[in-house]
Amino acid sequence: MSINEGDYVLLIYDRKRKWLLRAEKGKKHHTHKGTVDFDDIIGKPYGSTVLSNLNHEFHVVKPTPMDIILKMRRATQIIYPKDIGLILLNTGVVPGCRVVEAGTGSGALTTILANYVKPHGRVYSYENRAEFLNTARKNLEKAGVLEYVKLKNRDILEGIEEEEVDAVILDIATPWLAVRLAYEALKGGGHFASYSPTIEQVQKTVKELKKEKFVDLRTLECIVRYFNVEEGKTRPETRMIGHTGYMTFARKVQ
Amino acid sequence: MSINEGDYVLLIYDRKRKWLLRAEKGKKHHTHKGTVDFDDIIGKPYGSTVLSNLNHEFHVVKPTPMDIILKMRRATQIIYPKDIGLILLNTGVVPGCRVVEAGTGSGALTTILANYVKPHGRVYSYENRAEFLNTARKNLEKAGVLEYVKLKNRDILEGIEEEEVDAVILDIATPWLAVRLAYEALKGGGHFASYSPTIEQVQKTVKELKKEKFVDLRTLECIVRYFNVEEGKTRPETRMIGHTGYMTFARKVQ
Amino acid sequence: MSINEGDYVLLIYDRKRKWLLRAEKGKKHHTHKGTVDFDDIIGKPYGSTVLSNLNHEFHVVKPTPMDIILKMRRATQIIYPKDIGLILLNTGVVPGCRVVEAGTGSGALTTILANYVKPHGRVYSYENRAEFLNTARKNLEKAGVLEYVKLKNRDILEGIEEEEVDAVILDIATPWLAVRLAYEALKGGGHFASYSPTIEQVQKTVKELKKEKFVDLRTLECIVRYFNVEEGKTRPETRMIGHTGYMTFARKVQ
Amino acid sequence: MSINEGDYVLLIYDRKRKWLLRAEKGKKHHTHKGTVDFDDIIGKPYGSTVLSNLNHEFHVVKPTPMDIILKMRRATQIIYPKDIGLILLNTGVVPGCRVVEAGTGSGALTTILANYVKPHGRVYSYENRAEFLNTARKNLEKAGVLEYVKLKNRDILEGIEEEEVDAVILDIATPWLAVRLAYEALKGGGHFASYSPTIEQVQKTVKELKKEKFVDLRTLECIVRYFNVEEGKTRPETRMIGHTGYMTFARKVQ
Repeated sequence: MSINEGDYVLLIYDRKRKWLLRAEKGKKHHTHKGTVDFDDIIGKPYGSTVLSNLNHEFHVVKPTPMDIILKMRRATQIIYPKDIGLILLNTGVVPGCRVVEAGTGSGALTTILANYVKPHGRVYSYENRAEFLNTARKNLEKAGVLEYVKLKNRDILEGIEEEEVDAVILDIATPWLAVRLAYEALKGGGHFASYSPTIEQVQKTVKELKKEKFVDLRTLECIVRYFNVEEGKTRPETRMIGHTGYMTFARKVQ
Repeated sequence: MSINEGDYVLLIYDRKRKWLLRAEKGKKHHTHKGTVDFDDIIGKPYGSTVLSNLNHEFHVVKPTPMDIILKMRRATQIIYPKDIGLILLNTGVVPGCRVVEAGTGSGALTTILANYVKPHGRVYSYENRAEFLNTARKNLEKAGVLEYVKLKNRDILEGIEEEEVDAVILDIATPWLAVRLAYEALKGGGHFASYSPTIEQVQKTVKELKKEKFVDLRTLECIVRYFNVEEGKTRPETRMIGHTGYMTFARKVQ
Repeated sequence: MSINEGDYVLLIYDRKRKWLLRAEKGKKHHTHKGTVDFDDIIGKPYGSTVLSNLNHEFHVVKPTPMDIILKMRRATQIIYPKDIGLILLNTGVVPGCRVVEAGTGSGALTTILANYVKPHGRVYSYENRAEFLNTARKNLEKAGVLEYVKLKNRDILEGIEEEEVDAVILDIATPWLAVRLAYEALKGGGHFASYSPTIEQVQKTVKELKKEKFVDLRTLECIVRYFNVEEGKTRPETRMIGHTGYMTFARKVQ
Repeated sequence: MSINEGDYVLLIYDRKRKWLLRAEKGKKHHTHKGTVDFDDIIGKPYGSTVLSNLNHEFHVVKPTPMDIILKMRRATQIIYPKDIGLILLNTGVVPGCRVVEAGTGSGALTTILANYVKPHGRVYSYENRAEFLNTARKNLEKAGVLEYVKLKNRDILEGIEEEEVDAVILDIATPWLAVRLAYEALKGGGHFASYSPTIEQVQKTVKELKKEKFVDLRTLECIVRYFNVEEGKTRPETRMIGHTGYMTFARKVQ
């Protein structure tokens, strides 16, 4: 498969230096390791290696949804892939599902969800801050999944318009206020998920979940450690992300 | 959506007591909290609550792929959901992908992959131990995704028959021996993943990856901590899983 | 140095099978690996290897304070060595310090503190449950540090009798209720430490610390992972302790 | 207890802004929160609060050994308090012990060990790089424990001169080469400890330990997470130290 003009590509120098770029004729990308010319890239197969003007190797690959969210324009803090993977599996979101999400933020979680409900499922994404919605729309377009998402400029706390949805996934400041609304929007056995940085958010949300007929409550956090694997120098990396957010899951029953 | 005879359902008492069962007329399920009669379940909507003969509440929901793999018959140690989520996102497996996997084992990873490549993608799963393949086939059938999987009773070290695949995912004892084969089977920019319990496996595999034209190498481990969230008693759980396996990812370039 | 009758010794079969025993003539210790005869042990130097009647090797060493607390009779959950090490360093307890502790519990933390304030320092240990105090006294005697400890059958919430102490270390259910008392008992620059399993205890205690003139507040948790190091099988252990308690530290200023 | 001229004090603005300083008449300490005048400090009791010229509160306390090592001049990477606490308890180092240590480095571990073997024990610290030894000597003097340490400008791999020591603690590049030497220097039941950043160091060291008559082998790592505890914002800190070093412990038997 060849790289066409207009495609988004991931340009890789090494694990820590990667860029998400649109392939355009005449465009040049400047880095500390020299300039990469897009005329050398367009028409080549994905996976090709090109040289910068300083003769350093750069590699051009098709970006995954994860590459896109890690490199997308961020209006807000995004949910990280480590957490998104757990949300996907714990909510049982698979191709064909109808999922309600709030808030959209920069559209990172939305992008991944859209990739996994497509082609027949939909993500209904609520965001009351119009400026974020614009960023998210551009990001979803870049990721090629806008058609699977319905962006809604609405505060989810004013009500969920969808019914009988498979999952409601919240990344909002006051998830406990949306617990009852989520219950009503979910189908029987449907999945509730909430992602929150602070313990107080978890405490209040779980308290509300226990008032409604939700079962199988789980709260967890996910910690990822990267390793340096090099002969004689193998070890976990010195610095790591210590915390992103807690995830709480539950299922609606009747 | 109603529960039909023949459906697999998840019967939930609480977070730690759940059963994956087939709905059959006349069947009874015995637990410490009493006996649940399937005649009370069939025909009810998913998400229903039924009472055992001891008047305890049980809930019946549709099992997610994660529920299925956690409850499936295990011929082998399975890869856990926390790790599968990271594998999915790091390999960019989305609906439509063609993925090679080895070994099949009990079919846990296979089940999740099949759910996320469907309906148009395929999982080609290698397993040289015929007895495991039988278990895996039953599990995949139970999970309803057998049609998206090609089970192959072959040792992947004897060669990968597929070409231009999107990802090769290894959970075998000697992943380093399959690095060259994976390189050849992958399309440009395609994803390599290996899951290994020991550090020596990681050391050898990364050494081989560095010999081939793989880039964007990452080795990481994922640790999940569950929390008890209860007023006045909120805390991480006392015991946790300390290690399952390391994951190594890379992309093929040319 | 030879093993004398009456000494407490640590009998080691392997890392997971160790026993804290008193050397007595005629005494035999029965294990799955055979019987060890104390007549073979008394008079031998520490570090000796003896054979059981089934010809398995057992080793006899002098127990460290850590060995003693891990093997002592427990009336209560003890604070683990990983946490005690951090408490020691964060409170600056060194030989000569005067330390107030509550509650005594089984005397585990007391034992370690006594070992590190000796010979000229003292531990003042409050415990309102008389039955625990008896267990603790026996444990401290076994550990040979009873003379450095003043055990007090009193509820610390009724008042701290000591003045100008170097540190107050709390392992009680309601540490926030003792914050003001700790402030009064501490000398200028003295150290407050609290060990609590739950987040709510931490939240309340930190809130109280902020009301008093305490500075340099730190709350942390400590996670220890054990490794299996064996050629070709090196990896973290599968199961681990996920949580014991949070530690909060502060210093009194005026 | 009052602050005298010449004392080392810890000046605290908040948890992240602390300085280890010598109290000298006429000296001023400049910070972003204004200038602190030591003439305001000398003669005051420890724990006093003074105002900078910009009217910000600063607190003056007696530094703990931990404060000193965290603020000491570093010629090398130091072992962190979290790891030192575990080394102390796992090696059973208590007042009166005779401990061999290599290499001295900046003297951080030496400082803590000296504080816990004093007044009757000794630390014999080997360092073959003379320039590090100078830094270490100044640090130990500053910490007030130089009299309990014998600094030796020698490579420990050339031999350990002490006999019948209680513990040998290694923080050197090739600890496996010192395993036999440690065995010979230790008394029966004596403790071996090694601190190493990489897995290969651990693998080689454990292999050597298994060749000698060492028992009770343990390899572990220690991870500390700091929490932000603030009403409505309680959560682990976003960034943390992911790895410092692995610790391996063993006991000599005969």
